[in-house]
Amino acid sequence: MSKTIHFIPDNVKASAEEGENLLAVAANAGVYIHAYCGGDGVCNKCKVIIEKGEAVHENGSAPRKKKDNTVLACQTNILSDIEVRVPDQIKADGKALKRKPITTRSISARSLEALVGEWQVDPPVEKRCIKLKPPSLEDNIPDLQRLLHAIRKRCHDCEEPTYDHPELLRELPFLLREANWEVTVILLRGKRAEEPDRIIAVEPGDTTDKLYGLAVDIGTTTICGLLIDLNAGKVIAEASAYNEQISYGEDVISRIIYSQRPGGLKAIQEKVVHTINQIIDDVCKKVIISPSDISYIMAAGNTIMSHLFLALDPKFLRESPYVPTCSQFPLTRAAQLGVYAHPSVRLFLYPAVASYVGGDIIAGVHACRMYKSPKLTLFIDIGTNGEIVIGNEEWMVCAACSAGPAFEGGGIKHGMRASNGAIENFHIHPESLEPMIVTIGRTKPQGICGSGLISIVSELLEAHVIDQQGKFKRDRNHPRIREGEDGYEYVIAWSKDSKTGEDIVITEVDLDNMIRAKGAMFAGYQTLLESVGMTFTDLDRVILAGNFGAYIDLERAICIGLLPDIDRDKFYYLGNGSLLGAQISLIDHKRFRERIIVRKLLTNMELSENPQFMSHYMAALFLPHTDMSFFPSVQEKLII
Amino acid sequence: MSKTIHFIPDNVKASAEEGENLLAVAANAGVYIHAYCGGDGVCNKCKVIIEKGEAVHENGSAPRKKKDNTVLACQTNILSDIEVRVPDQIKADGKALKRKPITTRSISARSLEALVGEWQVDPPVEKRCIKLKPPSLEDNIPDLQRLLHAIRKRCHDCEEPTYDHPELLRELPFLLREANWEVTVILLRGKRAEEPDRIIAVEPGDTTDKLYGLAVDIGTTTICGLLIDLNAGKVIAEASAYNEQISYGEDVISRIIYSQRPGGLKAIQEKVVHTINQIIDDVCKKVIISPSDISYIMAAGNTIMSHLFLALDPKFLRESPYVPTCSQFPLTRAAQLGVYAHPSVRLFLYPAVASYVGGDIIAGVHACRMYKSPKLTLFIDIGTNGEIVIGNEEWMVCAACSAGPAFEGGGIKHGMRASNGAIENFHIHPESLEPMIVTIGRTKPQGICGSGLISIVSELLEAHVIDQQGKFKRDRNHPRIREGEDGYEYVIAWSKDSKTGEDIVITEVDLDNMIRAKGAMFAGYQTLLESVGMTFTDLDRVILAGNFGAYIDLERAICIGLLPDIDRDKFYYLGNGSLLGAQISLIDHKRFRERIIVRKLLTNMELSENPQFMSHYMAALFLPHTDMSFFPSVQEKLII
Repeated sequence: MSKTIHFIPDNVKASAEEGENLLAVAANAGVYIHAYCGGDGVCNKCKVIIEKGEAVHENGSAPRKKKDNTVLACQTNILSDIEVRVPDQIKADGKALKRKPITTRSISARSLEALVGEWQVDPPVEKRCIKLKPPSLEDNIPDLQRLLHAIRKRCHDCEEPTYDHPELLRELPFLLREANWEVTVILLRGKRAEEPDRIIAVEPGDTTDKLYGLAVDIGTTTICGLLIDLNAGKVIAEASAYNEQISYGEDVISRIIYSQRPGGLKAIQEKVVHTINQIIDDVCKKVIISPSDISYIMAAGNTIMSHLFLALDPKFLRESPYVPTCSQFPLTRAAQLGVYAHPSVRLFLYPAVASYVGGDIIAGVHACRMYKSPKLTLFIDIGTNGEIVIGNEEWMVCAACSAGPAFEGGGIKHGMRASNGAIENFHIHPESLEPMIVTIGRTKPQGICGSGLISIVSELLEAHVIDQQGKFKRDRNHPRIREGEDGYEYVIAWSKDSKTGEDIVITEVDLDNMIRAKGAMFAGYQTLLESVGMTFTDLDRVILAGNFGAYIDLERAICIGLLPDIDRDKFYYLGNGSLLGAQISLIDHKRFRERIIVRKLLTNMELSENPQFMSHYMAALFLPHTDMSFFPSVQEKLII
Repeated sequence: MSKTIHFIPDNVKASAEEGENLLAVAANAGVYIHAYCGGDGVCNKCKVIIEKGEAVHENGSAPRKKKDNTVLACQTNILSDIEVRVPDQIKADGKALKRKPITTRSISARSLEALVGEWQVDPPVEKRCIKLKPPSLEDNIPDLQRLLHAIRKRCHDCEEPTYDHPELLRELPFLLREANWEVTVILLRGKRAEEPDRIIAVEPGDTTDKLYGLAVDIGTTTICGLLIDLNAGKVIAEASAYNEQISYGEDVISRIIYSQRPGGLKAIQEKVVHTINQIIDDVCKKVIISPSDISYIMAAGNTIMSHLFLALDPKFLRESPYVPTCSQFPLTRAAQLGVYAHPSVRLFLYPAVASYVGGDIIAGVHACRMYKSPKLTLFIDIGTNGEIVIGNEEWMVCAACSAGPAFEGGGIKHGMRASNGAIENFHIHPESLEPMIVTIGRTKPQGICGSGLISIVSELLEAHVIDQQGKFKRDRNHPRIREGEDGYEYVIAWSKDSKTGEDIVITEVDLDNMIRAKGAMFAGYQTLLESVGMTFTDLDRVILAGNFGAYIDLERAICIGLLPDIDRDKFYYLGNGSLLGAQISLIDHKRFRERIIVRKLLTNMELSENPQFMSHYMAALFLPHTDMSFFPSVQEKLII
């Protein structure tokens, strides 16, 4: 149950879950508290007073109450509804921040269920325990037929199942007799409703209580896995790991290049498999089952990840006109790819639309069911290669915008991936220009991740430290604003407060890269909308997908022009749509079959050499945009 | 065009094909000519005079005309209608043989077409040449989808084909570009009408003129193959070879036993594969194509051969209650079994009914279309393990009778397989008791094959050399009838006339084995007929299948009680029904799909421990039967 946090004297209310960190909650709520060390507890700046309610020291052990109820916000977790006073001395220099307390979290909580809808426990594999009458001279039909007939009898006039050959056949006679004619069959449901089921394995005795599946999101950077109890339809373990292909290149292009070396494709394929095997190992250990108990693997990834995983040469994905080998990937035996699974286990990989709109996007669209809604929806996945889908139940167009890696820390001087030490939230005091830094893991800051970058740029813009072209105002005289080796920069953390021991800065070059990244995204929305004769005002919903999407602060993202300036109630956060789609498909076979609708509705648009896109892109290289009529709320905010 | 051979003075007319051997024609027509050496041209007994018409020396080189037109029948081939005088001195001792001149050949010729019916050229694989538009930025759908769409366009709203994974996918992008977007796809048609086609291979350029298939009969003794041009629907080469498994045992039981040794199954599986590979090599060399040009293999064999070929352990086939692993064998990739074929090539193996009624029988029933006729039909395949099918378009029952190997030369002192030197036809002079021997290849006699055995026994019976219990009449005083080491025997060929240099005899033990073999067959017909409330008089047709069937002399087979004594016009010869079924299925896919009807109609009856069968069997251990009312025509003949 969520708790209410009441910040006084600004009278800002925010909701938070039990156990959440107070500094992070304040930052999300737009309540400025001095904080230099990212939440590491060492700068001693973020003192606040708990006026009412219960809080606890971050490590859980210390009692919350000090003499005067003063605590370090960064070291304090919330236990109940609380009232927090932000002391005057910290707020000495003035007015409260103007930002509305709309946070990632509050939207996310309200929206996911509505978007995703309900699903049934009806997985793509099922187990049936079958007791057979032993053969006699009067009834000596073949072993396989005996089994097939029995299965057919059980499912009332269904079509006779097919079966895996040859391994199943060669073992069957011995297995049936050793099991004394009581076995459990694992049935793979037909991919389409009219296809017969398929026996993929037969186990002695009754093993119907054990039925597991694995959902996997094969990200370029991170691979996430969910182990699901398919009898209960519940996630019972999860794990994630960096995609080991990173050792051959951070982004997809460098991986394609590596794959073209002799032996490169094999090496890079083995890396992703090894990572998945590690995840399988992890989740199985957590609940003490064997990897061979997993009966189905449902995976999604972008088109390049999918090609590499299936050992399909990605050569032509990179060369114009960017042609994938295939877009619907065949149901594969996981073990044949090297995955640590029973030889019978099938791996489904979500289909792709084009070279740069992959199965991860289809899975996301599939999860959020925009193909079932009459509402005009903009689906956005922000990453190195931002993908966009616009449409409704009748049609959908999609495109990839080469946004560049800024939001994943690429091309940013102190950029880093969203991991421990990354600045994920940031406020600047409008008058003192001093920063409030919150890092992932609340350690000393080490660099800036995507959400941090958005926070920093929007704050610098709103505080008039930079102008709308992304240039530092040369007339602001402040120790944190200086000319560095790459031109003008703002010092976010001094070396004494940083983990690296050097100043963490944001430079004009960084700003330029970020502007180009968000400009490509915005130009993408515009081009796609125009292609179907629509404008931003026609949008009923904007769904933010991707791991990164979940950490975007809406107001700030709009402020810099990354998201359109429309009614905030239209925004929804999906989270990792790729993993969610795989999870839903693994649990509910009827939902799984609906992926075909997504694939049929989706039309890809190639933006890379589209003149319309190029012209929109040029116009978007401004904060938030050269045409401020697109951003009325930001225009208001930027008036000095 | 067939020729008429007129034998005088007996006034027997027979028809024969151009090039047929005169001694063989005489033997088939029941015209007795002295002949001891089997047709080798050395005993100089078979002199006849060509009165009218043209004949030629067997080797083709010598002119037919000698001074008085006297030739050795065994060395003479027929060129035109001829009149042949059998000289008086040979026939010195009397009357012409009483047998009707109904021969194997004359029935066979009239019946095969009517039985088998017409078929279309519409094979289970087809090739299509596809020219693709190269991709562009406006049209950059994946390579596979481009190909699938083009195929779909060509076949007017058919379902999108599926495709082989992964080999096809991994090669496709390179192949398409190297072939400049013109390729030929090999499509495998769905096993059932509603299944989509499947792309099994893609070749650069237009290769549609080359489309071949192989039909194979996997016999326990002999494996036969037909190479078929699937564009023309014609057999273009054939080959056969002994099943190399023979080195592990002559009959199926000894092969099952061998397969149970460590490594035995693998070894015995490799033998059959090696034999098939040899046949592939043979047929391909004959027409100068590569084995990789074969796109489909259609095979049939008995249940044990089928299990061994697929490396399915045959253990339980031999143990009561005789349960096969499966009866419908999955469509397999031939190369996975070790067959020398392109990795994409599928091998279909005809389904079995039971452990001892196999795919060879189904293929035969399929070929002769008894499932489409209202006529009550008895289908017989005589071999080690005689198989019987009785039924019509509404129902069919089948059974195997453990006839024993007598008809394949097993358990017969001088028995041998039907190969060069085997006595295949035999007459005995009713008064001199001297033999007329025709061997396969017309060489000196080496042993007795199945058709020879039937001839010998029926002739000995009709000449009253043996009685109806199969015992030699002790009162016949003749140098050829003597007591040997195994009891009484008849000397068929003296050592000087035989290839082995020893006397070739038939013994009472041989006769006993033969009687048990034919008794099992007859008891089988009876039991099956009774099980459906029918009798022999209800039969509309009797179809003789199997290689052996084609060489059976109807009158003689009835005489010994191997075939029922009914209207001779009801008999049809199918030949190698197993190979014929495979051939038809390979050419005509609609006919191929009808095999499902056969499988659905057929019900197996287990005779091995059936008391009805046992009692019929005991009654049949007599020549032709203890109940002579079953054999009215034989009864008449045997009256002295």
